[in-house]
Amino acid sequence: MIGLILAGGIGSRFWPLSRRSRPKQLLDLLGGGSLVAATARRVEPLCGAERTWVCTTGDLAAAVAAELPGLDSSRILGEPSGRNTAPAIGWAVRTMPEAARREVIAVMPSDHWVADEDAFREAVRRGAMAVERGDHDVVTVGIAPAWPETGYGYLELEAPAEPLSVSPVLRFTEKPDAEKAARFVAGGRHFWNAGIFLFRGTVLLDLYREHLPELAAGIERLAADDLGAARRREIYAGLESVSIDYGLMERLDSIGCVVADCGWNDIGSWGLLAEALPADGDGNRTVGDTLAVDARDNLLFADEGAVAVIGVEGLAVVRTGDSVLVVPRERAQDVREVVERLVARGRLDLL
Amino acid sequence: MIGLILAGGIGSRFWPLSRRSRPKQLLDLLGGGSLVAATARRVEPLCGAERTWVCTTGDLAAAVAAELPGLDSSRILGEPSGRNTAPAIGWAVRTMPEAARREVIAVMPSDHWVADEDAFREAVRRGAMAVERGDHDVVTVGIAPAWPETGYGYLELEAPAEPLSVSPVLRFTEKPDAEKAARFVAGGRHFWNAGIFLFRGTVLLDLYREHLPELAAGIERLAADDLGAARRREIYAGLESVSIDYGLMERLDSIGCVVADCGWNDIGSWGLLAEALPADGDGNRTVGDTLAVDARDNLLFADEGAVAVIGVEGLAVVRTGDSVLVVPRERAQDVREVVERLVARGRLDLL
Repeated sequence: MIGLILAGGIGSRFWPLSRRSRPKQLLDLLGGGSLVAATARRVEPLCGAERTWVCTTGDLAAAVAAELPGLDSSRILGEPSGRNTAPAIGWAVRTMPEAARREVIAVMPSDHWVADEDAFREAVRRGAMAVERGDHDVVTVGIAPAWPETGYGYLELEAPAEPLSVSPVLRFTEKPDAEKAARFVAGGRHFWNAGIFLFRGTVLLDLYREHLPELAAGIERLAADDLGAARRREIYAGLESVSIDYGLMERLDSIGCVVADCGWNDIGSWGLLAEALPADGDGNRTVGDTLAVDARDNLLFADEGAVAVIGVEGLAVVRTGDSVLVVPRERAQDVREVVERLVARGRLDLL
Repeated sequence: MIGLILAGGIGSRFWPLSRRSRPKQLLDLLGGGSLVAATARRVEPLCGAERTWVCTTGDLAAAVAAELPGLDSSRILGEPSGRNTAPAIGWAVRTMPEAARREVIAVMPSDHWVADEDAFREAVRRGAMAVERGDHDVVTVGIAPAWPETGYGYLELEAPAEPLSVSPVLRFTEKPDAEKAARFVAGGRHFWNAGIFLFRGTVLLDLYREHLPELAAGIERLAADDLGAARRREIYAGLESVSIDYGLMERLDSIGCVVADCGWNDIGSWGLLAEALPADGDGNRTVGDTLAVDARDNLLFADEGAVAVIGVEGLAVVRTGDSVLVVPRERAQDVREVVERLVARGRLDLL
C-alpha cells in the first residue's frame, strides 16, 4: 500500500515547546526523535520508504524533510497554505502519479503515539485488505478505548467487535460528555476515531466529486501543468476549509472500521502526552532534568534547565529555554488561551 | 546610635534564585535593589552611613560591599565562617572601637521588608531612648501582627500596648500553632519578634559573660592583635553556634519591647515574599515577564524568561535562567528539601 502522512498543523497546544517554526509533529515529546520521524518509522514496514508520501505546509516542508532523510523530497508535498484535512488529502492524492492513485492508500496523522506498533500495523493491513476486496469504499481505524475520553471522536459499530475485525460504521460521534463516554466504553460498540483512513485514491477522488464537488473541482484545477505559483496559491487559498471527517466520512454509506487494540493517543495536549509516558511510583511522568518532592501525578517536562516541584498534584509543568508553563493536566487544552493572549500582546518572540 | 546589619546566612529558601554565591540578602526580591542595600538605606537616617556596620561571612564580604558603596569597607566585617547570630553579634560588637561599643547599638537583619519606614525608624528611636535611659538592658522591636502567622516568634507583653510604647517582655514564644497564633493576635499582648535588638555594646558583652561565658571567652580570644588567620578561623569555628534569641534574649530579666506598627515581613520564604508584593485584581503577585489566565492568588516570579500559568491557585512559580520551582505558597518553606536533594545528588551547578 501507499502511505500518506499528514504533517501540517500549527500545534499551539504544546506551547511553550511548540512554536510557529516548530509545531508538534517536529517535537521530540516521547523520546526517540520527532513525532513525524516516529510515524515514518512506524509505517515503513507497511509500505516502504519509497512508497511513503508526506503532506505538510510549504513553510514547514524543509524542516519536515530534515526529519525524514530516508524519504525522497519529491514525495514531501508542501501545501501553498494550510487549509484543513479534506483539501490536504484530496490535493496530495491527486498529486500522486496515476498508478499510485489506483492503489490502496493509508492516510494518517504524523503526531500520534502508538504503544503496540505490530498490533497497529496488523490492523492497518486488515483494513487495506478490506478495501482491496471492495468490502468498503473507505476503512477507518477504530481504537479499543483505554478510558472514557471526552476529547475524542467515536466510531459506533453494530455490535461489540474483536480486534482486527472489520465492520460497518453506523455513526460518528464527536466528543461525547463524560456520561456518554462511559457508556460507550462499557458497551464495547464504540471505538476511538484515530483519524486514519484507507481507500483507493481513485475512489476517494470520485467520492470528493460526489460529496464535495467544489473542492474536487478546485483540486482538479490545481493539477494543471501550466499553473503559475501565484495562481496556484490563490486557488489553494480558496479551497473549502473542511475536515475529511466532517466533509466526507460522516456522509458515506459504505465506510468500514478495523478495530486496533494497540494503545493509541493523539497527544492532543500536555495532559494527553502524560498518558503516553511511563509513571514513577508517585504517578509523576518526567522528561529531562526534574525533581519532585512530595508531589503526585504531575507531568514535569524540562526541555532546557531544571524543573523542581514540591507538594503539587496533577499539574503539567513545562520549561523551555525562554518560558515556563504551569497548568493542571486536565486543563492543558486551555494553553491555546495563553497563545491567544501572547498574539494579542504582540509577543512574537514567544510564539 | 550605631547600626549593625547582619548580612550572613545562606538563604536556601529562595532557591532557585538564591545560590551559595548569591544568598537572599543580595537578591532584588522587591524591586529597587538588593535587600541589604535597602536595609542600609532604611537605617541611614537613624545612624548615618559612617556609623553603620555590617557583619557577614568572609566569602560574601566583597559581594556585600559592592551593594553598599556608601559604606567604608573597614566596617564590613567578614566572619571567618558562618556560625549563628550570637557569635556574629558578639564578635562584631567586640570588633568595634571601644567608644562605639559604649553607645547604643541597633542590630538588625539585612533581609527583611518594612512598609512604613518612618514608623519603623521612630520605633527604633524610642527603643534606643529606653536603652539610653537604662530602662532595660536590651530592647527588642515588636511588630503589631498583621495576621496570625505560625512561622514567626512572638513577644508576650503584660498588657495590650500602643505603637511606640516600651514595655517589659514577659515571654518569647516560638512559632505557635494556628489556634494559639489566632489568640495572640486577638489578645493584643503579643507582637512579632522582628529580630531587631538595641543595647549598649558594653552591656551586651557583660551579658554574654554572664549567660554565654564560653562564647564570651572565645570572642575575647579573637580580639587579640597578634592572632594569625589560621588560628582565628580555628577559634571562630569552635564558637558555640547559637542564636542570640535562644542563647541570650530568652534568658534575660530586663528586656523591653518597643511596639512598631509599620508593616513588616521577614521575607522568610517565597510565600512570605508574596505578602510583601502588591496583588492584582485576581490576587496574583508578579515580578518580571508573566501571564496568568484564570488563575488566582499566585506568586509568579520570572527572573529570566517568561512564566505563564492557567487555572492554578495559591502557587509560587519561580523561573531563573537555569531552573524553575513550583510549590504551593503555604508550603514554600519546604524548598529547603529541594536544596537538600540537590546537595545529595551533587548538583552543585544548581546550588
